[in-house]
Amino acid sequence: MAKRPSRPIHRVPLTSREALLFEAGIKLGGIFHQYLGIPVSPRTAGALARSIESAVGLQPFVERVRVRIAPRRGGPLGRGRFGYCYVTAEMIDARVTLADKGTRVVARLSYRADLRYPLMRVESAKNARATKRRSAI
Amino acid sequence: MAKRPSRPIHRVPLTSREALLFEAGIKLGGIFHQYLGIPVSPRTAGALARSIESAVGLQPFVERVRVRIAPRRGGPLGRGRFGYCYVTAEMIDARVTLADKGTRVVARLSYRADLRYPLMRVESAKNARATKRRSAI
Amino acid sequence: MAKRPSRPIHRVPLTSREALLFEAGIKLGGIFHQYLGIPVSPRTAGALARSIESAVGLQPFVERVRVRIAPRRGGPLGRGRFGYCYVTAEMIDARVTLADKGTRVVARLSYRADLRYPLMRVESAKNARATKRRSAI
Amino acid sequence: MAKRPSRPIHRVPLTSREALLFEAGIKLGGIFHQYLGIPVSPRTAGALARSIESAVGLQPFVERVRVRIAPRRGGPLGRGRFGYCYVTAEMIDARVTLADKGTRVVARLSYRADLRYPLMRVESAKNARATKRRSAI
Repeated sequence: MAKRPSRPIHRVPLTSREALLFEAGIKLGGIFHQYLGIPVSPRTAGALARSIESAVGLQPFVERVRVRIAPRRGGPLGRGRFGYCYVTAEMIDARVTLADKGTRVVARLSYRADLRYPLMRVESAKNARATKRRSAI
Repeated sequence: MAKRPSRPIHRVPLTSREALLFEAGIKLGGIFHQYLGIPVSPRTAGALARSIESAVGLQPFVERVRVRIAPRRGGPLGRGRFGYCYVTAEMIDARVTLADKGTRVVARLSYRADLRYPLMRVESAKNARATKRRSAI
Repeated sequence: MAKRPSRPIHRVPLTSREALLFEAGIKLGGIFHQYLGIPVSPRTAGALARSIESAVGLQPFVERVRVRIAPRRGGPLGRGRFGYCYVTAEMIDARVTLADKGTRVVARLSYRADLRYPLMRVESAKNARATKRRSAI
Repeated sequence: MAKRPSRPIHRVPLTSREALLFEAGIKLGGIFHQYLGIPVSPRTAGALARSIESAVGLQPFVERVRVRIAPRRGGPLGRGRFGYCYVTAEMIDARVTLADKGTRVVARLSYRADLRYPLMRVESAKNARATKRRSAI
């Protein structure tokens, strides 16, 4: 069994909640910057979303991921051989749940039309224990 | 039915074979630059490859795509929560077949360890007709 | 001096013109799929375009590259800390010139609003010699 | 003048320190997933690093960014026209400093050869004030 090495990841003591907030940011920042530009259509959007979920699900601390890609938010499709589109910021809605030792953080990336911005925000952060400690690798 | 508009794509006359060679390059260049960095493991590699195939399959002139992702070519995996890896150039093997009006081009991206290089090359190019014409959008 | 090895890249004989058309596609496909999502503003757009030119200029056969990033094509900017944007397909205009043994190909990626599509097309292809040969690595 | 709207970003109260840790993760996750695959050589690595710094510097809360790209960590270069390489995880070392209302967080992405992993970690987190509040957009 892969036993955890004892060296801490971070160079300062962080609560589980703080460490998970950092990790949640990593996941959302990564999703945004990895998948823009992939060809997508209404027919392939579901499988693409599943493949993003599988990829993010491999990363440390991830308990759950739910991704939706809405190709129609990219505006009207072209015609004929241009009748598909590329993933844009407007299309992506991703929610990640990270957990560690009883603490659980939920964060979300979704496009805010009012801000014209792909906003990443924390939806919940439940801290099981308040004690500070160094998290180990 | 989406009828093709008659405006030519290219500003110079190209044979079908030449136009498909250009398009084949687009597909392979895109695959290489889009997918590096995606988290992957032996368990998720197959579904990731299928999702790349679906995406590339949406693009103009693509008749067939076959992608393989070999996570173990990334070197030994880390342990514990680092026991997964990211897609690297070494892992990707992609073959695309493009067709238009009886002409068919097959091109491939695969890592050449001897060159330390993700080589993109043409595997076959069968030109049904030799007549030059402007391809239409 | 790095002498060229004599093994051919491609598995079929291609004219210089055909080989360069394939390579031109690789460059444009790569640009499109690599740079979407990078934060950019009117102030940083020029330096970002220069850095893309430098990167593409390293690739085989590239004689010249000219890239423009037009951040304002991404629509009105957000306000305050959201007053910047990310590179989108609409913003990119890239022209590459590739040359080999007297043959020269110019190709361009630019957004076509009428097609709602980032069109890649060949602008010129001048074939110095018509003889077919295998291009060597 | 762009006045800040008063709506909170997050749906739960976060300390400045917690909010900055989340933001720091976003920046590092984004760097990792955006830049892999860009052609680079010892000659262009500095300018590429500067362009990444400029891009990240546009993002909210970023006070400072320092990026280094070490092309030689990608292994020996190919020869001739393959004498350049692509950005890989091993090459990137990025440190971001985020600040908000007296709180300052420093985080870093650097490759850990012992873990075979591009590790993202918090280097310091100085909390000026301990009071919890909702951060506003």
